[in-house]
Amino acid sequence: MTVTITAFERSPDKGRGLARDMAVRWALEEVGLPYAVRLVSFAALQSLAHLTIQPFGQIPTYEEDGLALFESGAIVHHIADRHPGLLPRDTQARARAITWMYAALATIEPPIVERSMAMLMEREAPWYEARLPMLNERVRRRLDQLGSRLGGSEWLDDQFSAGDLLMITILRRLDGPLLGEYPDLRGYIARGEERPAFKRAFADQAAVFLARPAS
Amino acid sequence: MTVTITAFERSPDKGRGLARDMAVRWALEEVGLPYAVRLVSFAALQSLAHLTIQPFGQIPTYEEDGLALFESGAIVHHIADRHPGLLPRDTQARARAITWMYAALATIEPPIVERSMAMLMEREAPWYEARLPMLNERVRRRLDQLGSRLGGSEWLDDQFSAGDLLMITILRRLDGPLLGEYPDLRGYIARGEERPAFKRAFADQAAVFLARPAS
Repeated sequence: MTVTITAFERSPDKGRGLARDMAVRWALEEVGLPYAVRLVSFAALQSLAHLTIQPFGQIPTYEEDGLALFESGAIVHHIADRHPGLLPRDTQARARAITWMYAALATIEPPIVERSMAMLMEREAPWYEARLPMLNERVRRRLDQLGSRLGGSEWLDDQFSAGDLLMITILRRLDGPLLGEYPDLRGYIARGEERPAFKRAFADQAAVFLARPAS
Repeated sequence: MTVTITAFERSPDKGRGLARDMAVRWALEEVGLPYAVRLVSFAALQSLAHLTIQPFGQIPTYEEDGLALFESGAIVHHIADRHPGLLPRDTQARARAITWMYAALATIEPPIVERSMAMLMEREAPWYEARLPMLNERVRRRLDQLGSRLGGSEWLDDQFSAGDLLMITILRRLDGPLLGEYPDLRGYIARGEERPAFKRAFADQAAVFLARPAS
């Protein structure tokens, strides 16, 4: 089986592992599946060829013999479903791990993205300062709840799973000052970043940026 | 197996099927699984008993013999994984259907919720009118792309799946004027609403509101 994923030719995150190929690379490394990467320019994202496999003009995509998938959560799910290492075998533990995958994407990520987008797109707007506390509070509310659930545990359930992989990938998009309020969550992120599979995935995506740092 | 889900005791949507128990009810009806509903007050959502099974203080939850799940997408996934009717048997078609589940929650829903929240929470703010076109455009961009992919097809892939179920549930949160720009998507939603399982689920959640209409 040959796996090919897509990633940004020039990622706006400058190699910090914040683009959405990171979760897919990490998952592939966790299960030990070799893969090729096809880099896509911003112009090519809107091409018919790309929209045929990614209707929303985004990265990453995932192709293996005759199958084309998109949406990083779904790709991680597909990898985790077919290869041991990211989802427990026990039926109930598996359902709980999948719950964390959906919670990461549907409950934790939206307020983080909403805040990031405002910081990126509305920083000069006259209402930016007035809205920021509300956006911060929406994120903090979820981080408080997530931190309470995690407590002093190593992972969200008994063992590391695709749920932790997605959650940590998403939490990494937060900046230092806000995360600094949550030492337990910082420790949780650090445990993910210490995994050899994370390190290999991070190095590989950073290498794409380092190969052509000038824009 | 006894299935119990939770739903709002008094749903803010007044029985229009926009609360997050709707997708779970619909999925249970599609596969023919009987279930009980435990209604939860807003105060009880923050109780320790509820937070133990739903760390973010939301509905719905899903309990069956010894297993407690939360997050509507994950619950629909669990139901679809264990009962025929919501995910194809063919491995590749199944992966594509799961892709649409994640796309519904991670790509289509966030701009819809961001816009709804602004309409709900910031309508009196001095910046509301200035920001609304941007919020509308974020939703339209996704609806344009979704409509292009759907084209004249009945469902997102060859047959109705849990991906359509989540997508239609989410699109139903849009108001008439914006949806009116997308006749293909309105037709798609209508096909979902015409399914007998949808109608049973809708009637059951509406009955909760009709049983105590006065607040």
